[in-house]
Amino acid sequence: ESNSNLIRATLFPGDGIGPEIAESVRQIFKVAEVPIEWEEHYVGKEIDPRTNSFLTWESLESVRRNKVGLKGPMATPIGKGHRSLNLTLRKELNLYANVRPCYSLPGYKTRYDDVNLITIRENTEGEYSGLEHQVVRGVVESLKIITRQASLRVAEYAFHYAKTHGRERVSAIHKANIMQKTDGLFLKCCREVAEKYPEIKYEEVVIDNCCMMLVKNPALFDVLVMPNLYGDIISDLCAGLIGGLGLTPSCNIGEGGIALAEAVHGSAPDIAGKNLANPTALLLSSVSMLRHLELHDKADRIQDAILKTIAEGKYRTCDLGGTTSTTEFTNAICDHL
Amino acid sequence: ESNSNLIRATLFPGDGIGPEIAESVRQIFKVAEVPIEWEEHYVGKEIDPRTNSFLTWESLESVRRNKVGLKGPMATPIGKGHRSLNLTLRKELNLYANVRPCYSLPGYKTRYDDVNLITIRENTEGEYSGLEHQVVRGVVESLKIITRQASLRVAEYAFHYAKTHGRERVSAIHKANIMQKTDGLFLKCCREVAEKYPEIKYEEVVIDNCCMMLVKNPALFDVLVMPNLYGDIISDLCAGLIGGLGLTPSCNIGEGGIALAEAVHGSAPDIAGKNLANPTALLLSSVSMLRHLELHDKADRIQDAILKTIAEGKYRTCDLGGTTSTTEFTNAICDHL
Ligand SMILES: CC(C)[C@H](C(=O)O)[C@@H](O)C(=O)O
Ligand SMILES: CC(C)[C@H](C(=O)O)[C@@H](O)C(=O)O
Repeated sequence: ESNSNLIRATLFPGDGIGPEIAESVRQIFKVAEVPIEWEEHYVGKEIDPRTNSFLTWESLESVRRNKVGLKGPMATPIGKGHRSLNLTLRKELNLYANVRPCYSLPGYKTRYDDVNLITIRENTEGEYSGLEHQVVRGVVESLKIITRQASLRVAEYAFHYAKTHGRERVSAIHKANIMQKTDGLFLKCCREVAEKYPEIKYEEVVIDNCCMMLVKNPALFDVLVMPNLYGDIISDLCAGLIGGLGLTPSCNIGEGGIALAEAVHGSAPDIAGKNLANPTALLLSSVSMLRHLELHDKADRIQDAILKTIAEGKYRTCDLGGTTSTTEFTNAICDHL
Repeated sequence: ESNSNLIRATLFPGDGIGPEIAESVRQIFKVAEVPIEWEEHYVGKEIDPRTNSFLTWESLESVRRNKVGLKGPMATPIGKGHRSLNLTLRKELNLYANVRPCYSLPGYKTRYDDVNLITIRENTEGEYSGLEHQVVRGVVESLKIITRQASLRVAEYAFHYAKTHGRERVSAIHKANIMQKTDGLFLKCCREVAEKYPEIKYEEVVIDNCCMMLVKNPALFDVLVMPNLYGDIISDLCAGLIGGLGLTPSCNIGEGGIALAEAVHGSAPDIAGKNLANPTALLLSSVSMLRHLELHDKADRIQDAILKTIAEGKYRTCDLGGTTSTTEFTNAICDHL
């Protein structure tokens, strides 16, 4: 029976190390007394014809109903005729914006200690249209589709995010000097939205130059918004600056107020089931989820505990060169709660 | 009258700071007694209908005849109905491979001291097809074209380069998990060529992951080969690792043995004519040109002198935070020759 004071949220533990890092979230939410009741869904063993993928229809319905969820890594089973799990989720739930905060973690040293930015990626179209064909033998083409509707939607999300999160500037990343029509339309939409937010600075940066500036001086950037593939590339580059995908949260925003937070790293089958996985990315993603639910007290408390545990430097899972187990790391966070 | 012992090479000093940095190359070639006679061409003041750009037909004929050239920055004049100068050169001269060596410069400190890689970019097709149109109002598309012929050609160049330059590994960069047909064909061609070079290791790296690895640990890479846009992005990212486009050489390889070396930075109109420009990128590009001509003694001598001047740390032009003038920097290199 469900407790009516609790918020129901869908949980996809996912594959490989997924169940272990999901357990870490469950434990921490319990200790922090987060008023969430999980509705768990696993990836199916067979293709569900209603989704044309291994994701079950019920699991998608669960996110649609709860409007909020958390997702571990999902390895798409090899084979033809069905869709990637991640892409199915994005398409079916219309997850139009992928939001990735990326900030240097005190205590975990990389070459950068001054990263503090947010990448906001259009998540439904662009180079991910899936429209490709052979023109003649030896000549193939892919279509990049940019629409006014999706561009305005993600731009609106980015500016609203900047405004509500105390950010000063939005940079639109593009290659409109080459793709004048597609990236040109994207920029036009960003400019239109920028006009509605006079308090937020707006600039346009060509993607090649953006990557160069990011590696030279990431402190130059604040909020970045961009078409799908550029977002894929730049969000990973930024994750690299602070230590990798094991440390960066991600949250997907869909139509109708849906938020699906996710760890974007892989399922690491080599260390699965061995209590060796680093739960940080999923934990920080769960914090993003709490913020989306406006449970800021809980979010702050959990985020502080995670960051303190990392800052101490005593607890390092194997991906970061240490020997701390998943449960030791989780317990250390609980001690800080 | 031309001296028949001299190799004729086309020189495009270019715009803005171009003439000053070209003068630096001329001076150093003279001191190093490089057997080259320059044939100078400037960007025209009007559109040449034979090229549909501000590049004159004569200048293109000059490169076709000499088969070797050096190019400073060219600012494409604003306005419609004509092509970008850089793109015109690539198209008209069929410059199919853009080769950018990128290595840490002792004495010029960045966050990285372990970069030593070569990016090889397909330079004629892909996302640069120029094929774009509006499907309906608010929906636009760009075509990415990948051909077997161009992919094999650049892959062949990359493996041959690796083999003849003592390199061990070629990494093909792609996003074939999303663009299965286009990037899939690119990879298929790379694999075919890889089979002919069993002594060179071959691997495939997804572009998002590649960017993350590059910022975390660039020493993981050796020679990278990739479609046009990924090359644009990754070559600039790599330049950023070692200090920026002011320090990285570039050389374009065309059909029929053409090599057009170029500084890929901008024309910096704000400091043009003030003797403040950093000639390093054009100088190192001229070294690439000499290597293409197999003038390795001259290339080694000039490259050593440039690197020693940078390593001393006394001479820094304004782009690198110093006050050394273009001529002082050039004279310092000459002193090392
Ligand atoms: C796995 C892959 C299809 C996916 C993408 O390209 O979007 C991944 O890189 C990501 O960023 O979530
Ligand atoms: C100026 C621009 C068209 C060009 C490109 O995108 O190729 C530049 O970025 C380069 O890398 O030479």
